[in-house]
Amino acid sequence: MGGRSLGRRGSELAGMAATGRRVTGEKALIAALRRQVSVRGARSASELRLGMGDDCAIVRPRVGEEIVVTTDFSLEGVHFRRDWHAPEAVGHRCLARGLSDLAAMGARPVAAFLSLAVPEEFTVARGGTSWVQRFFDGLLSLAAEHGCALAGGDTAQARGGACFDIVALGAVKRGKAWLRSGARAGDYIYVTGALGGAAGELLAVERHSRKFVRLAQAERGHPHVFPEPRVKVGQRLAAMREVHAAIDVSDGLSTDLMHLCEESGVAAELDAEAIPVHALAMEADRRGWASSGLELALHGGEDYELLFTAGPEVRVPRKIAGVEVHRIGRMVRRAPGKPRISLRTSAKRIVAVEAGGCEHFGKSGD
Amino acid sequence: MGGRSLGRRGSELAGMAATGRRVTGEKALIAALRRQVSVRGARSASELRLGMGDDCAIVRPRVGEEIVVTTDFSLEGVHFRRDWHAPEAVGHRCLARGLSDLAAMGARPVAAFLSLAVPEEFTVARGGTSWVQRFFDGLLSLAAEHGCALAGGDTAQARGGACFDIVALGAVKRGKAWLRSGARAGDYIYVTGALGGAAGELLAVERHSRKFVRLAQAERGHPHVFPEPRVKVGQRLAAMREVHAAIDVSDGLSTDLMHLCEESGVAAELDAEAIPVHALAMEADRRGWASSGLELALHGGEDYELLFTAGPEVRVPRKIAGVEVHRIGRMVRRAPGKPRISLRTSAKRIVAVEAGGCEHFGKSGD
Repeated sequence: MGGRSLGRRGSELAGMAATGRRVTGEKALIAALRRQVSVRGARSASELRLGMGDDCAIVRPRVGEEIVVTTDFSLEGVHFRRDWHAPEAVGHRCLARGLSDLAAMGARPVAAFLSLAVPEEFTVARGGTSWVQRFFDGLLSLAAEHGCALAGGDTAQARGGACFDIVALGAVKRGKAWLRSGARAGDYIYVTGALGGAAGELLAVERHSRKFVRLAQAERGHPHVFPEPRVKVGQRLAAMREVHAAIDVSDGLSTDLMHLCEESGVAAELDAEAIPVHALAMEADRRGWASSGLELALHGGEDYELLFTAGPEVRVPRKIAGVEVHRIGRMVRRAPGKPRISLRTSAKRIVAVEAGGCEHFGKSGD
Repeated sequence: MGGRSLGRRGSELAGMAATGRRVTGEKALIAALRRQVSVRGARSASELRLGMGDDCAIVRPRVGEEIVVTTDFSLEGVHFRRDWHAPEAVGHRCLARGLSDLAAMGARPVAAFLSLAVPEEFTVARGGTSWVQRFFDGLLSLAAEHGCALAGGDTAQARGGACFDIVALGAVKRGKAWLRSGARAGDYIYVTGALGGAAGELLAVERHSRKFVRLAQAERGHPHVFPEPRVKVGQRLAAMREVHAAIDVSDGLSTDLMHLCEESGVAAELDAEAIPVHALAMEADRRGWASSGLELALHGGEDYELLFTAGPEVRVPRKIAGVEVHRIGRMVRRAPGKPRISLRTSAKRIVAVEAGGCEHFGKSGD
């Protein structure tokens, strides 16, 4: 029949039975994946009532909780390159983006769904394992670490580069999710970990990609290749019930803080000396790859740290779940003619900070 | 800074504020979309507590209900072609796939999330409107019809063809979602509407694409270009509480019935004369585009009808929510050496039916 490649939907992960027969192509991929999932992702949240194997998965939140949902693309050539990133790193980073969004709501991970379109060569085993299997190794390792089951998705063959869309579902106490709009003038601004590390490491990857593509196992100290979503910090903070607003630092401190300010109708004053600059950002500075470490900390993307605000009366610990927390400034009333974000430099000058994150369709003009 | 196009995440639909300033590229797309959504998608399910505008959306199911989740890719060159399908049809079909999965669980639509990666030219206005805006016109029309809010997603610029991933969330009474594994020997098998129409129309689109690409508004009678997900039928059937198992006919009757049989551990006997063959499948037969209308009804994909089973004592109405329902066979015990699916032809012969759906990575060998 005509139109073989068009007009039929790709088989869904959720819709495929793992049969005992020899199967080819997509079905083989899905069967292999289901085996991997059943081995690796054994620890499922009780909220997941039905995972892969039907038209839909079923999620039942606990009494007094509600469900938060986020989706994130990972596209070859945009978010990763096959000559720069090991498949395990691509899988890890794919899920990390979703988990980081859950962390930014103070939510507990419940389930993830992955739609993947990959070129055929990614499914061919080389040295006993295919690109896609290694991708799932990376993704499922991170999922297991956070008790997040892979509950479904969709597959298709890509005509161009590989394309992944991760959907992450989390659980949060009713009405207690942190919003971007909750910050108040007078709040202190906090950030977890250190900033600019992912941008600093990316500059190194660009220059020495062969060294980094060999990193196939999640290791600390690689904020670009294996970012650590702040899921546990988020849950500890949620238990404290003192956070007013939060966002994850994915587009860069300046851009994400601008979101907080705009949604909350406030302005921010940052103290340059208080901003924790990651060692890899400092190193990029020393090597002359960036104008300064602080520049990377302010505008570099993909740190996946938590940026949050709390009232001045709150004592926020300096370390939460093993991660340092830094107070970097405060929220103030918005004043006409004054910048949304101002920065007090080490020379005690006040400068305006513009949102410096990138736009995929062109340079951000504002 | 180096690595502009790599290493930063795309801005999320959920994360963007519609500011009053002139914005470019991705931000403009998102702002335009948020305006479209607020105009078109006014009727939100009460379960959606927070839509676009934060790291995550928030969904709170009603007391006694749980949430079902499904994801579906729509890829250019695989699921649609820009020279065959109007943007409105692409948007409609994209969401229809998700809604059809909800219908197959007996669920009520609550919210959809869309991740889209499109080439830059799709965002450029031609004759006052861009491809993407027309895409959203089609998607949001169908969403409004089914009370399904667009609650978030992600955007990126595609390096190759356009890529869409739809996530659909629905609500269903706790423990009452229809599973593929619920069919019992002795059940009658039912199907809504007629089969083979989408495959029949696709054969016509292949031959006369210019006629079909002009179809920019959802019209009945175009099962390939504007499929009608059986959401209302599903909810009426769910209220009857008599359905044992269900699936939507997306990969073709033979493939989807095979899933039901395998997951339920039963076999199926179909009556060829009882299978409702769509008029467009008959026409494809008359024109010599297909070996027979019945062939398209058995193996053609994307009909998005509901296939379900119920006990022999149940009286299933012949019409539900304006859609005809046909009894096409029955489930029987699996017997060694006998086919999973057998068909009694008009000549009273019994033939084995193989799953005839397509595999994206090669021809299905089983």
